[in-house]
Amino acid sequence: MKKFNIAMIGAGFMGKAHSLSYAGMPMFFWPAPGIPYRKTIVDVTEELAKEAAQRFGYENYTSDWRKVVEDPSIDIIDIVTPNDSHAEIAIAAAKAGKHIICEKPLARNAEEAKKMWDAVREAGVKHMVAFNYRRTPAVALAKKYIEEGRIGKILNFRGTYLQDWSADPNSPLSWRFQKKVAGSGALGDIGTHVIDFARYLVGEISEVMAITKTWVPERPIQTSGVDKLGTVKGESDAPKGVVDVDDEFSTLLKFENGAIGSIEATRNAWGRNNFLTFEIHGEKGSLYFNYERRDELQVCFADDPSDSKGFRTVYTGPAHPYGEGLWPIPALGIGYGETKIIEIYDFLKSIVEDTEVSPNFYDGYRIAVICDAILESAEKGVWVNLD
Amino acid sequence: MKKFNIAMIGAGFMGKAHSLSYAGMPMFFWPAPGIPYRKTIVDVTEELAKEAAQRFGYENYTSDWRKVVEDPSIDIIDIVTPNDSHAEIAIAAAKAGKHIICEKPLARNAEEAKKMWDAVREAGVKHMVAFNYRRTPAVALAKKYIEEGRIGKILNFRGTYLQDWSADPNSPLSWRFQKKVAGSGALGDIGTHVIDFARYLVGEISEVMAITKTWVPERPIQTSGVDKLGTVKGESDAPKGVVDVDDEFSTLLKFENGAIGSIEATRNAWGRNNFLTFEIHGEKGSLYFNYERRDELQVCFADDPSDSKGFRTVYTGPAHPYGEGLWPIPALGIGYGETKIIEIYDFLKSIVEDTEVSPNFYDGYRIAVICDAILESAEKGVWVNLD
Amino acid sequence: MKKFNIAMIGAGFMGKAHSLSYAGMPMFFWPAPGIPYRKTIVDVTEELAKEAAQRFGYENYTSDWRKVVEDPSIDIIDIVTPNDSHAEIAIAAAKAGKHIICEKPLARNAEEAKKMWDAVREAGVKHMVAFNYRRTPAVALAKKYIEEGRIGKILNFRGTYLQDWSADPNSPLSWRFQKKVAGSGALGDIGTHVIDFARYLVGEISEVMAITKTWVPERPIQTSGVDKLGTVKGESDAPKGVVDVDDEFSTLLKFENGAIGSIEATRNAWGRNNFLTFEIHGEKGSLYFNYERRDELQVCFADDPSDSKGFRTVYTGPAHPYGEGLWPIPALGIGYGETKIIEIYDFLKSIVEDTEVSPNFYDGYRIAVICDAILESAEKGVWVNLD
Amino acid sequence: MKKFNIAMIGAGFMGKAHSLSYAGMPMFFWPAPGIPYRKTIVDVTEELAKEAAQRFGYENYTSDWRKVVEDPSIDIIDIVTPNDSHAEIAIAAAKAGKHIICEKPLARNAEEAKKMWDAVREAGVKHMVAFNYRRTPAVALAKKYIEEGRIGKILNFRGTYLQDWSADPNSPLSWRFQKKVAGSGALGDIGTHVIDFARYLVGEISEVMAITKTWVPERPIQTSGVDKLGTVKGESDAPKGVVDVDDEFSTLLKFENGAIGSIEATRNAWGRNNFLTFEIHGEKGSLYFNYERRDELQVCFADDPSDSKGFRTVYTGPAHPYGEGLWPIPALGIGYGETKIIEIYDFLKSIVEDTEVSPNFYDGYRIAVICDAILESAEKGVWVNLD
Repeated sequence: MKKFNIAMIGAGFMGKAHSLSYAGMPMFFWPAPGIPYRKTIVDVTEELAKEAAQRFGYENYTSDWRKVVEDPSIDIIDIVTPNDSHAEIAIAAAKAGKHIICEKPLARNAEEAKKMWDAVREAGVKHMVAFNYRRTPAVALAKKYIEEGRIGKILNFRGTYLQDWSADPNSPLSWRFQKKVAGSGALGDIGTHVIDFARYLVGEISEVMAITKTWVPERPIQTSGVDKLGTVKGESDAPKGVVDVDDEFSTLLKFENGAIGSIEATRNAWGRNNFLTFEIHGEKGSLYFNYERRDELQVCFADDPSDSKGFRTVYTGPAHPYGEGLWPIPALGIGYGETKIIEIYDFLKSIVEDTEVSPNFYDGYRIAVICDAILESAEKGVWVNLD
Repeated sequence: MKKFNIAMIGAGFMGKAHSLSYAGMPMFFWPAPGIPYRKTIVDVTEELAKEAAQRFGYENYTSDWRKVVEDPSIDIIDIVTPNDSHAEIAIAAAKAGKHIICEKPLARNAEEAKKMWDAVREAGVKHMVAFNYRRTPAVALAKKYIEEGRIGKILNFRGTYLQDWSADPNSPLSWRFQKKVAGSGALGDIGTHVIDFARYLVGEISEVMAITKTWVPERPIQTSGVDKLGTVKGESDAPKGVVDVDDEFSTLLKFENGAIGSIEATRNAWGRNNFLTFEIHGEKGSLYFNYERRDELQVCFADDPSDSKGFRTVYTGPAHPYGEGLWPIPALGIGYGETKIIEIYDFLKSIVEDTEVSPNFYDGYRIAVICDAILESAEKGVWVNLD
Repeated sequence: MKKFNIAMIGAGFMGKAHSLSYAGMPMFFWPAPGIPYRKTIVDVTEELAKEAAQRFGYENYTSDWRKVVEDPSIDIIDIVTPNDSHAEIAIAAAKAGKHIICEKPLARNAEEAKKMWDAVREAGVKHMVAFNYRRTPAVALAKKYIEEGRIGKILNFRGTYLQDWSADPNSPLSWRFQKKVAGSGALGDIGTHVIDFARYLVGEISEVMAITKTWVPERPIQTSGVDKLGTVKGESDAPKGVVDVDDEFSTLLKFENGAIGSIEATRNAWGRNNFLTFEIHGEKGSLYFNYERRDELQVCFADDPSDSKGFRTVYTGPAHPYGEGLWPIPALGIGYGETKIIEIYDFLKSIVEDTEVSPNFYDGYRIAVICDAILESAEKGVWVNLD
Repeated sequence: MKKFNIAMIGAGFMGKAHSLSYAGMPMFFWPAPGIPYRKTIVDVTEELAKEAAQRFGYENYTSDWRKVVEDPSIDIIDIVTPNDSHAEIAIAAAKAGKHIICEKPLARNAEEAKKMWDAVREAGVKHMVAFNYRRTPAVALAKKYIEEGRIGKILNFRGTYLQDWSADPNSPLSWRFQKKVAGSGALGDIGTHVIDFARYLVGEISEVMAITKTWVPERPIQTSGVDKLGTVKGESDAPKGVVDVDDEFSTLLKFENGAIGSIEATRNAWGRNNFLTFEIHGEKGSLYFNYERRDELQVCFADDPSDSKGFRTVYTGPAHPYGEGLWPIPALGIGYGETKIIEIYDFLKSIVEDTEVSPNFYDGYRIAVICDAILESAEKGVWVNLD
């Protein structure tokens, strides 16, 4: 069984999630496509990197990602840094012939993303962008139903991603509120997950029309480097800095196949935590998914008898996608960790089997194009075509 | 206690609902503002009208609505006919000095609605348009919270009205699919309820941007005159006629007060029956309502302690709007009938107390303006301003 | 169409509900089995009775129920008084040859109930006990599924009825807390509805084992005669009187057909309003119902494909029991009123067609036997056999 | 930071879950109380053990658990074998001075469990029984509310654990259906989790009264050794063997502190997957939890204003128990893995800090006493006292 040496660039929340997935993947999917080995982890200082190595189980550590990218013993570069460094790292890694998995959004804008997509294509390496939510078994089940024609031709897609961690105006000005680091706000941070759902489940988007809003125009400047989601007590006396990204966007969509849709995302929705949902209406049925209750997919089939028609709440388990590798009965519990474990499983499989995995850098690039179009539409007040 | 002689014009589903409300209102709200007396009912033939009188408890019946409108003994004209006759009846009734309650949508378009609004204003009679859903106690509770500032300044409104009774392409071509009778499709039939929510809860809409879709371009012609919602077995061999209204629309909104919003309505959503919902995000809280579970309002308050913050499911009862008149404990059950009973209560109160009730013909007219703008936006692909 | 002259004995919350049902029934079920005519209403004083007549739409009024029972023009006696007068009125009415509908519980204990059942049987009149909740369309749908064998042989029944209106110890000592008037507490008041469900859906109960609890041993004495559910502000300084009935009971059941079960009912469950539920497991499927969301029945069929098995949420409408008479699409809204309208429909039909309606006084008597057994079991700590 | 050498005895579903928790714990809780090192894994054959070592990341493997228990390099013995070997392994491990974590139920009966509890006490080692569900953050939050007095004195506890993986009579006769291996059926397998909840949240149980049922008296004999939950296709032609344990039990409870309760557990409830729930009513509030939606706790506080009282749906996150170590916002997703990671965290902390962890072998023993009493009550039909 092939061993893959992993280098993790970054050691925050996503470093944790990805490290768990490397440790856990073969425990779930066995025989595994390969055994990931946590070789090297990179953080901003040697000290932090050293601690991260101990915490996340890596053999080596460093604060110099460039050295790692050049290290011939490394097979896979895993990029979990803030958005503004994705392109530079990924392009360097591609040139060094490494397979790459990169956190979302792929880049700050389509131009950057295009360069990344060009780089991996030219290098012939495998590449993935970590829109992990589509690997929730219930989402994969939705895809299966659609591919099997069980809800017929799709008419409408409605997606939302609602959070409340920045609804408090005293929530700090982390990099996620700064355009030069993040590229955009709720759009890139969470909206891209819904756009990924839309393309995955319905198809390519042809036109967008959008509104964006920045509800909190300035926030307390964050002194520590850590990405603190949510209110940080005591920081409200800090001097304030400008928020130059969207807190919320709302968009209408047209798909190439004739379906219509809408997407809304905000980080200012009190009471919504990780409310990533979609509802899809087809000619023969409907689907509903809410990640907050991610073990469940709701499906209604039009051809059920009239006296017993209605949404079924299907709890995913062994009978559903990825079920053979997960837990032995439904509702034992899919957590964030499991979505990441599946992601790494599919990525390693694509390397071993030399196939294309999805979503890859092309998908990440297309999503960046859509994000740019959404911002343009909101600014100009017109439909923007995505040809 | 004043007695009000009622004349009901129409005897279908809405004739039933309104008749129940006249019978039941004083039983619920006591002392009642007045005692409604079911005096005369009108249907398309004398025979049908006679049967309706017996069924719905009216003293007299006729097939000639004009005679009824002129009848000096009648105090209130209740219009529950298809949309294309609302204007003619209402204008005649206004001229005859009758108070008028008219089913929604007020008219087929803004031009018609304007004439109706002009007529009642000039006549000085009381007028109401029957957007009964806003009288669901849970919706009135949402209004109360908003007025008390408990969710703060509103940022976003999202409304949906999803049904599936016309998702089947063999569902018959009733008047609801014919522009000359209905004015529009899902927009006027159900979308107007959501627009009413938006104006009631958030405020006046300033701009709209929309998509409309007709998913089923033709349907079996309906031979009987009855308004059959849903599939009618055996009619699928009937010759087909053209559907010239929308099956679905989706719209972005801007409100005058700076909030944004979106509304979607469709009658082609398998598994959704009467899925009339709104979600509202404010600076200090959020609200969610789903009419399918209409005894409940969900509310999240931002200032709840961090260890016990989340949406509360409030079942309406004696402690909530209209609670003094309804059932003695929450969740005994608000049905469609109760919403109509409250509606009639408020209407009669407005007559007795000589106050303006809402929504009235002005509201009905503004909603018609918005509907026209939605259709125009969808056709032209541009934002339409509602000044 | 036959006209039925109704005499209503009592004019409280139940007088309201029943009066609405007489007014509304023919509007819903047409052709109606008969036209109920609100002839006479009885309350404790002439003044109250006069007001009730105006409010609830009765031609006559009186404070003397005996006169009414003897009135030859009356066809049906409707008993909505507190429990301690049911037997006397019903037995007199039976002797006078009246058909009788009586609120639940039928009597304070099995001995009383037996006399009532004997009286109606001897008189040959029609009789019904108003366990209206089983007429919720979703409950009738559960019955239909069971009768059609769609969930197979029943293994387990779990029923609950949870309310919170007496959780506050300052909630007044209404008649519902006094054994000499009510017979028992949560058991008779709400538990009997669940026992009715158990017998209706599963079959006759053979043995019970129970615990009862009185959580609030004394309460402020209520000065007014009105049945005030819930806390009444300002009454907490009133002198207190003893509660001599159960606030809560919990019971295990054995059914004659081999199924097992459990029932819990309490009026001290904060946050539960009218939480009347059942869950039934059969060899081929399961059912779940919660009256707080009474438009819905949840059903799971074992033979669904493994990739799409799960509880279906069925909203009742035209395709379900009583659907032809109710509202034209599902989720327009079943309220308390509708359950009572259906009840009166079935009762009048039984009179016109000379059939037995269920639940009748025999059922009411059997339920009283079960209640007595529950109290006996709780006192003695042993299983009580119901032969 | 101390390193702990772990020996895992068993390599099935629970071996997977526990191995993930050792790998992941320091990633979540940092600084960790110690770094677990996966030293040795044991399975029934050398070949299986070798594969398990590779899959689950252990340095060594063997088929001889006795050798492992004696190995001086091992700090912790983790027992994830079927129930009939728990006692022998644990007692040997205790004698060898190892700390022990043992899967639930601790033993097949109280007698065995007592010996285990005696052994660890005498040896002075740390011991834990793996009732992981109480470590779901939402359950720990319930405990916190109760300890803070926020729902007042507890009146009633109702717990259920409903699954459907053995509802199919062709589901194989695994060891879980054999008394000599499992001790009991649904009772020991899943009911013990609910009993653990009851003791954890309410207090010690004083008396039980129960029914048990074996719905499927015989099942196809399972040829392979793997613990296959759920239907295994093709095995239905296998010869059948007797099921000598309960498929379902239902019990009434009395607690020492005066509260009452009920517990039901079954593996024959179609549509229920891992429906582990509790509802608790206190004098000042109520709680509801359903593990199938384990990110959520529902809580109602009696002292909320009457116009906004109702169950709050609290999604656990950083503001709740264990939140500092888990994911940065609520509803990112608690899965089965996270409950096990917390469990190991608390266990290692108890070793490092030399404190007692709960639930430990004493708790496991008390639960076994309750299980024995439930079986005795069901057999004799009497209340059984637990002194």
